[in-house]
Parts: sequence; structure tokens; C-alpha cells
Amino acid sequence: MISPLEELLTALGRLPGIGRRSAERIAFFLLAKPEESRQLGTAISTLHERVHTCNRCGNFAADELCPICHDGKRDRATVCVVARPWEIQSVERTGEFRGTYHVLGGLVSPSAGVGPDNLAMDALVRRVQEDGIQEVVLALEPNMEGDLTGMHMARKLRPTGVRVTQIAQGVPVGRDLESADEVTLARALRGRVQL
Amino acid sequence: MISPLEELLTALGRLPGIGRRSAERIAFFLLAKPEESRQLGTAISTLHERVHTCNRCGNFAADELCPICHDGKRDRATVCVVARPWEIQSVERTGEFRGTYHVLGGLVSPSAGVGPDNLAMDALVRRVQEDGIQEVVLALEPNMEGDLTGMHMARKLRPTGVRVTQIAQGVPVGRDLESADEVTLARALRGRVQL
Repeated sequence: MISPLEELLTALGRLPGIGRRSAERIAFFLLAKPEESRQLGTAISTLHERVHTCNRCGNFAADELCPICHDGKRDRATVCVVARPWEIQSVERTGEFRGTYHVLGGLVSPSAGVGPDNLAMDALVRRVQEDGIQEVVLALEPNMEGDLTGMHMARKLRPTGVRVTQIAQGVPVGRDLESADEVTLARALRGRVQL
Repeated sequence: MISPLEELLTALGRLPGIGRRSAERIAFFLLAKPEESRQLGTAISTLHERVHTCNRCGNFAADELCPICHDGKRDRATVCVVARPWEIQSVERTGEFRGTYHVLGGLVSPSAGVGPDNLAMDALVRRVQEDGIQEVVLALEPNMEGDLTGMHMARKLRPTGVRVTQIAQGVPVGRDLESADEVTLARALRGRVQL
């Protein structure tokens, strides 16, 4: 295999979900399609110059504000807090949320040396104080780091008096109870709702 | 979703084996890794300038000749004929072939208007006449177009007196007979060998 192809295969092989065989299929596809290669190469090379961070919420943005913060029809009084910008897409896909977002930039992780002050927590406190936010919905990973992050976030928000909620943790839809782990099941029991 | 991201997702979605979800995973990975994005973008953008065609066999090449034609340890008297350059990798992976290659550039396809003269058949005839080739092994797809191409290739090579063979067609290893289609099984019967 010649070196420009090897370099491409190595770079493709670093992508999530792309093994050696998939990398070869993609490389050979690109070799057969000069126009597609040019478009994809440009889209990837210029990605970091063209994608910015929303000044308000931290979502991906082409300008100062992301499309959601730009959108006058979104409910600005309800803010959903996520760790990473791409998690916004997961919430959007549900079609259940008409509010806006706030991206923390990660989760509190003592082992990785990430504390509350390394995340965009104070920026959210300022938004709550200045923007008339009524409810902050924490949508963080249901694990130790997510819980710790939620705890710190809730503590920082307490003085503002804003309502802080957390998305429900429980057994996932469409799976049998047997396959749920004990922690998930314990949280599902603690979070039981009356019918 | 902002437009630079949409463009990237559209371009990624055209790749073989990449659906919308995989495209999103890859895009978010690239957004989180500026260095990987730069490398991959460059590898793709410069692919067509850097990858050439071997003057002798038609394989991918960084220079005038591909690494296989360059390699003095390969048997130049045996040439394996494939339709497309990436099929060379499949033959190479077997570890069974120490000869060299010839890429036709496609298969004869009356419906697509591809005739024998649109393929690199005459170039192979010249190689046989000039390079002391003793055997031409046809490794073409086992279907109508592959058979037709092989027939034309064999006819063009006949005057040179070179030995022309074809890779065996039969039931694939590791599958049960039940799952083999009739044509494959018929060819396996016709091609039966004595034990």
C-alpha cells in the first residue's frame, strides 16, 4: 500500500466505529470519486474554522449565537443543562423539549482533575440572574460524575431561587427488567410515580 | 444544526456504510479533535493529487510504478488480472500470490456501454508480448460481466500463446451448501477436482 493511502487509512481508522475494512471501503470509494473527496476533505479541513461556540449557551454555532438561541419560538425560561454540545442533538430528537440549553463543557471528575470551576457553571448562574430563567433541567449522565456535577450545579444555583430539576433515571423503555443493573433498578424504585 | 455541520454530515453520509447516526458520531469526534480533523481533512483533500496510477499495471501508485511492480522479489512471469485497483488488496491478503497484477479499469458491460476497447486489454497484450509473461490469471467477478470480460480477454491473448487461467468458482468456504445459489453450485460441480 502506498503512503498517501496508508495515511488516509490510518486517519480514517481513528474515527469512532471505523475498523480497517471500513476504512479501506471508504478510501477506495473516495479514490473512485474525486468530487466527493474534494467536498468531504474541505468540509473536514474547514470544520474548526467554521464551527464556533454559541456565546450564550455553548452549543455549536456558525455565528455569535446558535440556531436554538436565535430561535424566538424557543422557551427562554426553561434551560436544559448538558455536559457536551452534541448531547443537545439527543434531547432535540425527542421532540419533547421546547426550551433552550446550557453546555457545561464536561463533568466534574476528581480523578481527571476537573472541578466545578473548570466548567461553565458560573455562566449559567449569571444567565439565571439576568435572563429570567424559571427552571433549570439537568440532563447529565446517570453515573458518579454526572451526579457529582448535578450536585455542584444545584448548590451554585440555590441562591438564585430558580427551580432545579433532573431528568428521570429508571429502567429504559423496551428492555426487560432482568437486563437492568441494580443501580438503575434502585433509582427506578426510588423515583417511582403514582398512577 | 448549523450549516458547516450539516455539510459535513451530508458529505459523511455519502460514504459507504455510514448512516446518519455514524455520521453524527464521526462529526462530533472531529469537532472534539482539531488535530485529527486537520490530518484527515488533508489526507482526503490531497488524495487525488498524491495517488497516481502505476504506468505498468494500473494499480494505485505514489510514483511511476506501484510498490508491487517496483518489488524485485515479485514473479513478473505471472500476472493476475483484476477489474479495479482495490481488488488487488483482496488478492494480496490471501498471501497466496507472488506474481504481479494488471488492472483493466472495469468490466465489459453492454448495458453500460463498456466494450473491450474501453478497458486496458491491449496494454496487457503488449505486456505479454514484451515482458516475458508466462501465465495470465483472470480474477474477475463471477457474474455475467466478469465472464464476458474474461472471454474477451482470453480471445485477445490467444495469438500470444500465453497460458490463460481463471480463479476457481465454487462454494465459498465456511458456508453450508444449502445457502449456495444454483449458479454457484453448478459451477462448483463443473469445476470439481479429483481427490
